[in-house]
Amino acid sequence: MYTLYFAPGTCALASHIALAESGLPYEVRRVKFAENEQRSEAYLKINPKGRVPALVMDKGVLTETVAILAFIAQVAREANLAPLDDPFLFGRMQAFNAYLASTVHVAHAHGRRGTRWADEPSSHADMQRKVPQTMGESFRLIEDELLAGPYVLGDRYSIADPYLFTIATWLEGDKVDIARFPRVQAHFEAMKARPAVQKAFAEEAAA
Amino acid sequence: MYTLYFAPGTCALASHIALAESGLPYEVRRVKFAENEQRSEAYLKINPKGRVPALVMDKGVLTETVAILAFIAQVAREANLAPLDDPFLFGRMQAFNAYLASTVHVAHAHGRRGTRWADEPSSHADMQRKVPQTMGESFRLIEDELLAGPYVLGDRYSIADPYLFTIATWLEGDKVDIARFPRVQAHFEAMKARPAVQKAFAEEAAA
Repeated sequence: MYTLYFAPGTCALASHIALAESGLPYEVRRVKFAENEQRSEAYLKINPKGRVPALVMDKGVLTETVAILAFIAQVAREANLAPLDDPFLFGRMQAFNAYLASTVHVAHAHGRRGTRWADEPSSHADMQRKVPQTMGESFRLIEDELLAGPYVLGDRYSIADPYLFTIATWLEGDKVDIARFPRVQAHFEAMKARPAVQKAFAEEAAA
Repeated sequence: MYTLYFAPGTCALASHIALAESGLPYEVRRVKFAENEQRSEAYLKINPKGRVPALVMDKGVLTETVAILAFIAQVAREANLAPLDDPFLFGRMQAFNAYLASTVHVAHAHGRRGTRWADEPSSHADMQRKVPQTMGESFRLIEDELLAGPYVLGDRYSIADPYLFTIATWLEGDKVDIARFPRVQAHFEAMKARPAVQKAFAEEAAA
């Protein structure tokens, strides 16, 4: 049994969808950000970074979306969620996910978590103003260069798809019109229709 | 033949060291940041993100340190640079590398590349002031929780080690005293003594 610690609206949704696709047995547990539970002593024992997602299993704990997604694909081989026998294509997929984690998620975070990187309210406001630009530039690159279509890797679905979908759910709040990016938008609509995505949303709502 | 595009002082050093450890045939090409070559038309065809590293081979191009390092380990299996047959331990290694990429490298970048996330000089100065704190906090977590020692994964060397070493080379410039972190410091000194690290520095200097 795998236990995924998540909070609604966070990147943990990507790992949740991948679990729902995988056929692995799992449960989800909500970390109550409104009560600052991610900084509680109990949760910091699970993930000393005080963030979600965290995937708990008998062997221990995995963190970081890029690592959790690849792990799910590797242990659920029959679900065919990654090109595990092609190091180059696996590398392309991991490069895409690493870009989402290190650049796109980081751009988004400047709108809400500016206190991570600066102390003055004027700096936080400056960061917030720039989010539509940086998120727009990131999705321009995804649209023009990185998303092969219909899935990230082309015709084959992979763990890059729930991650892209998850970050695309943030565009509206970041004041970026997804319609500027037709391939991303088509991907977004196709993902919303997948049973695993609907299952993950239902489980988030019930948790 | 693999061609690694790098610039001195960047995270490309991690991939360079991994190549030197791997036994794979490779060459390195310097991208002249002082001449803004990373934004040149020729380089943007290699990596439309305008960044280093980029690893070029017959099949195509890989970017993102987290992906390049795992790729090198997968194609150079005999070099034993990653626990390729243990998805959980592979996941722990990738989680470590993803933390370096998404949190630690990003913290560092706020000292030099603040224009990515804000427009006002006062915001950039604010970000710069906070770098010693954020880098110090990141390395506190690495020291206390993440670095098993002597290597990142414990007794076995892996591609997490050149990446940690690379980012640790930035501490002095970020005004963080590495001596506060004895395990990190011991790791740093052990890495400096490795032939592959010395080879990578010599090749950087000659490129």
